[in-house]
Amino acid sequence: MEGEAVVENKRIIFKGYIDGIPKETDMEVKSGGEGVGRSGGEEPLPLLRSLHARAHAPILRLLHPPFPSRLGFGVSRVVDSDHPDFSAGDIVTGITGWEEYSVITRTQQLMRKILRQDDIPLSYYVGLLGMPGFTAYAGFYEVCSPKKGDYLFVSAASGAVGQLVGQLAKLHGCYVVGSAGTNQKVDLLKNKFGFDEAFNYKDEPDLDAALKRYLPKGIDIYFDNVGGSMLDAALLNMRVNGRIAVCGMVSEKSLSNPRGIHNLSNLIYKRVRMQGFLQSDYLHLMPRFLEDVGQLYKQGKIAYVEDMSNGLESAPAALVGLYSGKNVGKQVVCVCPE
Amino acid sequence: MEGEAVVENKRIIFKGYIDGIPKETDMEVKSGGEGVGRSGGEEPLPLLRSLHARAHAPILRLLHPPFPSRLGFGVSRVVDSDHPDFSAGDIVTGITGWEEYSVITRTQQLMRKILRQDDIPLSYYVGLLGMPGFTAYAGFYEVCSPKKGDYLFVSAASGAVGQLVGQLAKLHGCYVVGSAGTNQKVDLLKNKFGFDEAFNYKDEPDLDAALKRYLPKGIDIYFDNVGGSMLDAALLNMRVNGRIAVCGMVSEKSLSNPRGIHNLSNLIYKRVRMQGFLQSDYLHLMPRFLEDVGQLYKQGKIAYVEDMSNGLESAPAALVGLYSGKNVGKQVVCVCPE
Repeated sequence: MEGEAVVENKRIIFKGYIDGIPKETDMEVKSGGEGVGRSGGEEPLPLLRSLHARAHAPILRLLHPPFPSRLGFGVSRVVDSDHPDFSAGDIVTGITGWEEYSVITRTQQLMRKILRQDDIPLSYYVGLLGMPGFTAYAGFYEVCSPKKGDYLFVSAASGAVGQLVGQLAKLHGCYVVGSAGTNQKVDLLKNKFGFDEAFNYKDEPDLDAALKRYLPKGIDIYFDNVGGSMLDAALLNMRVNGRIAVCGMVSEKSLSNPRGIHNLSNLIYKRVRMQGFLQSDYLHLMPRFLEDVGQLYKQGKIAYVEDMSNGLESAPAALVGLYSGKNVGKQVVCVCPE
Repeated sequence: MEGEAVVENKRIIFKGYIDGIPKETDMEVKSGGEGVGRSGGEEPLPLLRSLHARAHAPILRLLHPPFPSRLGFGVSRVVDSDHPDFSAGDIVTGITGWEEYSVITRTQQLMRKILRQDDIPLSYYVGLLGMPGFTAYAGFYEVCSPKKGDYLFVSAASGAVGQLVGQLAKLHGCYVVGSAGTNQKVDLLKNKFGFDEAFNYKDEPDLDAALKRYLPKGIDIYFDNVGGSMLDAALLNMRVNGRIAVCGMVSEKSLSNPRGIHNLSNLIYKRVRMQGFLQSDYLHLMPRFLEDVGQLYKQGKIAYVEDMSNGLESAPAALVGLYSGKNVGKQVVCVCPE
């Protein structure tokens, strides 16, 4: 592929500033040939065909405002490439757009070739074996300092991160409790993922009381995917020398009404370590993660649930659904069936 | 001393529940012989004469409600003792009452004999060389992971903890900025304790802007003695891989109106570690602390300022003064001049 390449493309764009929780009408599908070309003289860049894209909530907060229309994490197939590291037909993961075709601009940094394994669906590389799974893996082993017998609580437990955190913790010998927002998800946690206990936080007017009921001895590790009032309740229930891995702040994402945290003084009396982290700081562990978690999955020692929506046009509804907790398991958009 | 010993005693008691910030009228001086006796058959306990007592704010929060009337940290002289470890005339520090005489009940755990040094006033053992100094020492070296060149910010910087944190950080090669609540204290920080910069937070309507002005490159270490809105502003200014040592939450102490924290999501993006701690977890370092800080003081490498009020009757006003920031340096009550 040389010089300018133009293909008919279809993508999702955000029309403007998002006030709080996004609505489907904030986004639209746009068609055209623009944006997939590249100018000569630069590093040769592969043209990709999107296969699976991730519907991911926190990205809105990170990019807000102003709001770029082309960013997301996906699995793609290389259509054409002059780049020595990529050939037509390669399957890659990395930051691409919510779009049918992408020309990637920073290959080294963001793209990773996938060595396909027959018994692992490609969509898993945006979930269990992608950034969310790796977030769970790095967060649990590198941030939580887990010990056998620890009491672990994880919020948003049925999401792609939470699922794996809980299951890794069970394999590590922890007692695991998770919270989720529907009874269906709670059922999944207990019966599919093997959590010791799980509860629907929407049925709990008093989160502190709920945590005391499910974790009467307190919490050694809180893997926090939500922030807000759940974090505040967890702070009241931490055990001495407890650890809080701060992974997500979903409930702070509606910027119009962020809820303040009031119980941080418990960090002192309980000598709690609260650690924010990004998976990107642990990329040296990626090969070990793919090997470990891939093996555990193939051996049936961990389960994974994803919620697949079909077609690029379904992406806005899938994204909006995240905010109401509609999805069960990792929300993935299938852009193009193989 | 055998059996029951009764001496005429004078002490400060708290009359009842304290609603928010304590007032002088919440306390009263009480005289009588009760409470200094002991029954036979128990471990022989020394009778102590109080010399210096610490006026300390956080204790109110820890004990609230109900509120015991006899608790504090002080320096005392042993008046009489059958206990093998203590003899009449020994100088000790530990948890005693705001009272002229104390019978201590858990000697091993709480009392420590002081080997007097001529050039160090005894009152320093409730400050620079007591629990506050040791809190600074353990917190800075064991919790903050300091490196030469780090940008350190400390709040309530002219207090007994803050003074020493800033000076240890300067000796360690950090750039040090402190906040305090009066211009007199700011002057002290810059001209007596050698801070690089200091500011009066009461003159700063926008704490975030103040921190950006004094620490334009951000904060590697925030030694937090106050919590509240200063913590929230510091969270906005943390550098990647920053550390927050959570030592005090003074501004949460008025229980009627605690301010929520809103910027914890910065922990994630900046990968910040926030660690609560208590000095009592580091007591194995006490001998090294006394040696190190004692030497630094004698060599003139660190300074120390205390605010002495005279007589047990002055204790309530001294305690109340802490909440308005009236004291300059460590507030100490001289109960009985030697």
